[in-house]
Amino acid sequence: MERKLILITNDDGVGAQGINELARLMMELGDVIVVAPDSARSGAACYITCTQAITLNHRVDMEERGLQVYACSGSPVDCVKLALEQVCPRLPDLLVSGINHGDNASCSIHYSGTMGAVIEGCMKGIPSIGFSLRTLKHKCDFSPYADEIQRIARFVLTEGLPQDICLNVNFPEVSELAGMRICRMGRGRWVQEWISANNPRGMNAFWLTGRFLNLEPHSEDTDYWALDHGYGAITPIKLDMTAYEVLHSLTPLIS
Amino acid sequence: MERKLILITNDDGVGAQGINELARLMMELGDVIVVAPDSARSGAACYITCTQAITLNHRVDMEERGLQVYACSGSPVDCVKLALEQVCPRLPDLLVSGINHGDNASCSIHYSGTMGAVIEGCMKGIPSIGFSLRTLKHKCDFSPYADEIQRIARFVLTEGLPQDICLNVNFPEVSELAGMRICRMGRGRWVQEWISANNPRGMNAFWLTGRFLNLEPHSEDTDYWALDHGYGAITPIKLDMTAYEVLHSLTPLIS
Repeated sequence: MERKLILITNDDGVGAQGINELARLMMELGDVIVVAPDSARSGAACYITCTQAITLNHRVDMEERGLQVYACSGSPVDCVKLALEQVCPRLPDLLVSGINHGDNASCSIHYSGTMGAVIEGCMKGIPSIGFSLRTLKHKCDFSPYADEIQRIARFVLTEGLPQDICLNVNFPEVSELAGMRICRMGRGRWVQEWISANNPRGMNAFWLTGRFLNLEPHSEDTDYWALDHGYGAITPIKLDMTAYEVLHSLTPLIS
Repeated sequence: MERKLILITNDDGVGAQGINELARLMMELGDVIVVAPDSARSGAACYITCTQAITLNHRVDMEERGLQVYACSGSPVDCVKLALEQVCPRLPDLLVSGINHGDNASCSIHYSGTMGAVIEGCMKGIPSIGFSLRTLKHKCDFSPYADEIQRIARFVLTEGLPQDICLNVNFPEVSELAGMRICRMGRGRWVQEWISANNPRGMNAFWLTGRFLNLEPHSEDTDYWALDHGYGAITPIKLDMTAYEVLHSLTPLIS
């Protein structure tokens, strides 16, 4: 049987601990190609680089580890697009993105570069999974999640995923998971998002910060509830954002 | 009755023709505040600027036109977030984004900075609409769409929109619209996306380009079909990306 081909990317950059841990786990499941941003691209969402040329550099220094690694000057989505046309010998059997340092639950999926890459992989017909850890640390202990990550990846390699659907997997920072849950995306938003930046030239300058506001803290079926209670959260995400339930009620708009 | 407050942004930048046309149309419906990127941010999606401070500059030169205009060094989503916390005296009654030069139908919504701003407005509880014109021109005739844009904006100002749902409105480039249609997001993807960039230092460098592949060209209920046949397309878009239809089938993943 042909060995599986697994494409790995992230938004924390090729040097982040999370992607190196993910590569190590995936090498046990197949042949691994890493194409990731050359530095951090947090909050990159589905950003595509339209206004400048981007570069792709083979990291020869990392070849000894038995995997191909490329650093790209573009966004996570650029990385996936470039990998598929310029690097991979065929369509990968699986795309995994992460392990992100920071969760991508609830509304944060919209801002997530980790999930941007997953959405791009899904659009291209590849079973795609994003892995994120709720942590603020650059150096983390990923060992409590290793078995689950391999198990989920193996399941998707074997079973595939439905058309135009990908997975968003989030872990809480715990020494032992309470378990895994299949969840929906919780409702939430960020508030108090700016602090003034001291600026020597008197301009109005601001840093993005913010506090997450959970709009349904007591709903046990959400990804956010799972993380708050020590569970890993698996959320199926669809490319089609149409609000079918209101199509009919919009008829007055065209009559 | 208090005058309506309308927040306007885009991803083509504050100097684009589309946003100036949109501001002119909205000034007939209420008080207008424009907070837009200082230059083009095409393909910005829901990008948020995490790694540097961003600036916000009052464009005093445009005050004579009777509207407040601010140029921001960040992304379209940054513009909305900054506008709400630092500029607007209260939550706007409506957010409109565009008029984008280029359509944002089918999968392109995922990459669209125009729609990124709309999704952000929706997340913050503001009835939000994105307007895009399928054109490659920087200078366009927007007059065939003016009445529809005002009519849709007026409808949403009066009726509001359901919670966590926003509108994506796309127009074809025509002298007269065949009509308007309520549509779902069509299935599609971009292919042949890269061309090599000549690079004097021998690096692998690439420009993003591409051709849109419509995966269901004969489905008359899609946004893409509408545009291809001279209709304007109104697509309701939801924040919740959960694929509810497969939640149950994922149970084997946690057992």
